[in-house]
Amino acid sequence: MPVTRFDLGRGTSARRPDALAVEEPLELRVGGSSLVTTMRTPGHDVDLALGWLLAEGLLAAADDVAGAMHCTDTDETGALTFNVLDLTLRAGVPVPDLAGRRTFGVTSSCGVCGTATVDAVRERVGRDLTGDATRVDVEVLASLPDRLREEQAVFTRTGGLHAAGLFTADGEALVVREDVGRHNATDKVLGWAARERGLPLPGTVLVLSGRVSFELVQKAWAAGVPVIAAVSAPSSLAVQTAQDAGITLAGFVRPPTLNVYTHPDRIDSASSSATSVG
Amino acid sequence: MPVTRFDLGRGTSARRPDALAVEEPLELRVGGSSLVTTMRTPGHDVDLALGWLLAEGLLAAADDVAGAMHCTDTDETGALTFNVLDLTLRAGVPVPDLAGRRTFGVTSSCGVCGTATVDAVRERVGRDLTGDATRVDVEVLASLPDRLREEQAVFTRTGGLHAAGLFTADGEALVVREDVGRHNATDKVLGWAARERGLPLPGTVLVLSGRVSFELVQKAWAAGVPVIAAVSAPSSLAVQTAQDAGITLAGFVRPPTLNVYTHPDRIDSASSSATSVG
Repeated sequence: MPVTRFDLGRGTSARRPDALAVEEPLELRVGGSSLVTTMRTPGHDVDLALGWLLAEGLLAAADDVAGAMHCTDTDETGALTFNVLDLTLRAGVPVPDLAGRRTFGVTSSCGVCGTATVDAVRERVGRDLTGDATRVDVEVLASLPDRLREEQAVFTRTGGLHAAGLFTADGEALVVREDVGRHNATDKVLGWAARERGLPLPGTVLVLSGRVSFELVQKAWAAGVPVIAAVSAPSSLAVQTAQDAGITLAGFVRPPTLNVYTHPDRIDSASSSATSVG
Repeated sequence: MPVTRFDLGRGTSARRPDALAVEEPLELRVGGSSLVTTMRTPGHDVDLALGWLLAEGLLAAADDVAGAMHCTDTDETGALTFNVLDLTLRAGVPVPDLAGRRTFGVTSSCGVCGTATVDAVRERVGRDLTGDATRVDVEVLASLPDRLREEQAVFTRTGGLHAAGLFTADGEALVVREDVGRHNATDKVLGWAARERGLPLPGTVLVLSGRVSFELVQKAWAAGVPVIAAVSAPSSLAVQTAQDAGITLAGFVRPPTLNVYTHPDRIDSASSSATSVG
């Protein structure tokens, strides 16, 4: 796309082409009926749909999906679009119903709060990761965001994409995905993992290029990922959720330092001793 | 909250307190009925609700809302929560209905695409900003992200908040809001503006601390803001939407350079001439 670049230092402006991160709607249908439409970067749409359905508890396992088909149509320029994905469920799997799901974790009383929200997720996920025996060396953990960026650099020069990746605790990259939406990037990663490895995912680390919200921790919880490493800050509810889920949550992973907010016992470190300050 | 900070350079780890961006659920009710629950940073909840309802086309004007009341309840520690907001509508205003709105812009044919999505927004918004006569000096435009950060620095040291602000074309800050969700920060800003100034908002610039998605441009369009200035990249559909809406969209606003993707004619610049490159 053409862009006008102003340079105030030089006092110039120039028209030139520029690459942009692609954002397009995806309509997800199940058995021909429209379920939801989301904005995403095209590619890995089946994993995106699968990851989202599993994270939301709308499906129980990857093999609930028997088949997936992109409807193809053309846009006004005659180019093919792949923006409708129709899933077929295995016989006997109930069609997901979004009615009443908008107000997750909300009781009929006048008291939705963070704790009630986490409780609702726990009930839905039915999984506690506290006992997961995964261990990660702190040097490996610190290296993962750079590893994510290396994998990401191959795919984009637009500056507009979030990335998520699943790594082994030894630092091996299993899958890296990018999207204009960071929730989508995580759904694509966890959908792939549900298909290829099955859930839960002991011995893995979810690596995120940005901040950590409640919703991202919820997705890791649903997929059974015991460790999250993010480049930026977690929110208060993300930390509370990770604590309750039994997930090790590391933020501001920017070597040579990183913060561990919850369950630091999974981190192996040569460092001498933990000093309590303040 | 306590955090374990590892320093690999020094080979130390220390436990210390850390400030986090607050994320809590907000349940929005209208006339006592639950409409939607969203995660947000508490504060300016009425503006958040108002901005969201107007951007989604669920209300037509700020004065459709006759009253707003936080239900107060206590969490498990006995602290007051303010996580349910109940709006009362003016007599005669229909209660917003989300049913069928999930699949915005989707036709019954097998062909949802970016263009169809933008067309659907145009039909809903019913506004074309192409004729808006707002002009912005390029030096003022370039300064706005720093101005946003200055206002933001007062409020947070958590590193976990997105910011949005509304400025006049002369560079005067009208309102700056922060939130764990960048859509929320924008809703809070535009909800404030709808209340205080009324829509549309000629002569203003929406300034964003991060990337620009389709949804953020859609919000500016619905509020009638003719110029957007963002620190990071826009998506392809954000640019397409801004082009069709008649909005001037600037990205990578990082002095001394900035990119203008659409409608650069609103930008006043001392620069000699636009040279076409490539």
